[in-house]
Amino acid sequence: MATASTLAAGSVGTVETRHLDLPRPVRLESGRELHPVRVAYETYGTLSPRRDNVILVCHALSGDAHAAGFSATGTAASTRDGFGADDRDGSAGKALGWWDGMIGPGKAFDTDHFFVVSTNLLGGCRGTTGPSSTDPATGEPYGPDFPVLTVADMVETQRAFLDELGIERLAAVAGGSLGGMQALEWAVRYPDQVDDIVVIASTHALHPQGMAWNAIARESIMRDPDWQGGRYYGTGRIPAAGMGVARMVGHVTYLSAPALHDKFGRRLQFADDIRYTITEPEFEVESYLRHQADSFVRRFDANTYLTMSRALTYFDLARQYGDGSLAKALEGVLARTLLITFSSDWLYPPVASEEIHEALSTLGKDVELHLIDAPYGHDCFLLEEARQTPIVRRFLSGTPA
Amino acid sequence: MATASTLAAGSVGTVETRHLDLPRPVRLESGRELHPVRVAYETYGTLSPRRDNVILVCHALSGDAHAAGFSATGTAASTRDGFGADDRDGSAGKALGWWDGMIGPGKAFDTDHFFVVSTNLLGGCRGTTGPSSTDPATGEPYGPDFPVLTVADMVETQRAFLDELGIERLAAVAGGSLGGMQALEWAVRYPDQVDDIVVIASTHALHPQGMAWNAIARESIMRDPDWQGGRYYGTGRIPAAGMGVARMVGHVTYLSAPALHDKFGRRLQFADDIRYTITEPEFEVESYLRHQADSFVRRFDANTYLTMSRALTYFDLARQYGDGSLAKALEGVLARTLLITFSSDWLYPPVASEEIHEALSTLGKDVELHLIDAPYGHDCFLLEEARQTPIVRRFLSGTPA
Repeated sequence: MATASTLAAGSVGTVETRHLDLPRPVRLESGRELHPVRVAYETYGTLSPRRDNVILVCHALSGDAHAAGFSATGTAASTRDGFGADDRDGSAGKALGWWDGMIGPGKAFDTDHFFVVSTNLLGGCRGTTGPSSTDPATGEPYGPDFPVLTVADMVETQRAFLDELGIERLAAVAGGSLGGMQALEWAVRYPDQVDDIVVIASTHALHPQGMAWNAIARESIMRDPDWQGGRYYGTGRIPAAGMGVARMVGHVTYLSAPALHDKFGRRLQFADDIRYTITEPEFEVESYLRHQADSFVRRFDANTYLTMSRALTYFDLARQYGDGSLAKALEGVLARTLLITFSSDWLYPPVASEEIHEALSTLGKDVELHLIDAPYGHDCFLLEEARQTPIVRRFLSGTPA
Repeated sequence: MATASTLAAGSVGTVETRHLDLPRPVRLESGRELHPVRVAYETYGTLSPRRDNVILVCHALSGDAHAAGFSATGTAASTRDGFGADDRDGSAGKALGWWDGMIGPGKAFDTDHFFVVSTNLLGGCRGTTGPSSTDPATGEPYGPDFPVLTVADMVETQRAFLDELGIERLAAVAGGSLGGMQALEWAVRYPDQVDDIVVIASTHALHPQGMAWNAIARESIMRDPDWQGGRYYGTGRIPAAGMGVARMVGHVTYLSAPALHDKFGRRLQFADDIRYTITEPEFEVESYLRHQADSFVRRFDANTYLTMSRALTYFDLARQYGDGSLAKALEGVLARTLLITFSSDWLYPPVASEEIHEALSTLGKDVELHLIDAPYGHDCFLLEEARQTPIVRRFLSGTPA
């Protein structure tokens, strides 16, 4: 366990994931109700007496509640998908939070001022109720009987959870990717309870190619016979093969083509020449993908993957709230909105943030958009912390751009 | 069977795939020898008395010898991967060749002037010897014992095949994607036997992201338990699940994101609202991908897919012939070179053709490059026939650009 003297500057230190059981069922968009619901969460910083300094940080597809600091239990952080992220996990050796570069004293989400709350999403596999949790109706894990969720369901769960903490208003909701979708959903769903939203590398609706990649990842899992229709818990078999392929697909979409070129080129794995093998990796990029697949399979639940992937594919503010019009969907937004997007992100491309910016601007809302020119693709939201920090700090301070 | 009166203008008519057994073993780059080798082929047009009007057309990953006209046996054409391609297959109903728009009287490869030869590649599954062929050593299908091939091995087989036809020189070698790689390999390997090469939507070496997509497709096949280490022939099981995912990955990489957006958007499959299902397609793009997967699995052999994917990943002119230098690799080229590339092709992006163009230009070679602005991604080489035709016709006529 880290002591004060070994902490990195600005670290929130060692943190423990806690759990809270919601007293009432969560009512879902599908019409179903879920009960009981347990929420895994972490907090960083100090809640002000007026409870007006709360920032809710929302994780992406494969994330968890451990967003900052060192894990007390030493389990691996989960959403650090990119190059730098992996490297840092490896070198740190004790599970740095997935957004540690953004959360802490003096950081973007400054714990000297803010009380930062991070929860594992509904449907997750890292402490919050999800498909691997016990179904009270059967005493067995839910598996495929777990409800199909939407981003709104995740936000409803966060709302119910914050109620239990006695937190009514949020100074900000922030997240990247699926996390940014939650921030948008908060602003639309609870306009008078959110002061600011910080939406990074996200979108109001995934574009069809992104929907296709997600569909392929889900197909890969569901076509694995070891998925067993989702009832693999306790069988001694998990859909590792399909999950591995899903992860490889995801991983390539998180990176940019130039980033892969710079990192691996066409370098061969072992020798100066090819070895004429199909079953073994010949090139470094092939070996890297296998490694990514193997390590992911060990730490993530396949049914949670399916749930998250489906929810982020469904997410579509215009369809949900605007009869097809994004502007109409955003009409009621009161939160100040900060949008950050990255030039090389082709999974959540800048145009999506530009569309949100245009809709909010036209409506006369308080919104700003920052396009960061950076080469690492979608993973930039995890890696380009230094360049996001001044933008986020200034925005949260209320100083105009 | 089509009669003369029902033929489309410019059609080569009804054609039959023929087969030829090579008299000698094919010596492979790996050091292995393959014998016997049968080659499936079609020809269109008439061989000139001087045998100087031969164009060899080379197919891509999932192709076959049936490049033009209507198939006499009515089997489905194979490399028509894109939207238009699929539609045409469906409506034609009798197996139009995969490059029918480019080959025929008055077309780009004009059978009034040229004798066009098309072979199924070595390692194929449509008549040429490949992994599903009988291994003479065992009397069983080769399966995983089939040699790992390179593009050079495919070209060597074409060379040996043309010897049997009494064809020494080629007026041109032409192809798209993997087919373009073969054209380049011909120009490097047999500089004094090729007058022209036509290299469309291709590259001198696949970039790392493209290598990654191919690796993922192969992983998906090999991780399917029904692949059975490649020995699935005769077991009643084929790796349909893995092949389906491989095809979906391939398919998305063949198309551009804007093309997917234009064709499908985020349209729901059945209703005005979502149905809360993970196992069933909700969006049109999801249903489309499943359809693509299912139809591909029925017509293509998994081990051939692995073989082709590995060969095109290996292909790297600079490594093979230039000690890492593309210019050095191309030093000996004598053929006039036509490069065509498409603005929206992100799998074989324009920059690859530009690099070939620059290398050949610097060497003082006769080369021209055409960038066609078109939205359909890599599939443009199959779909944008009308715009390629005048470029190819003028080039082959010897008229300067």
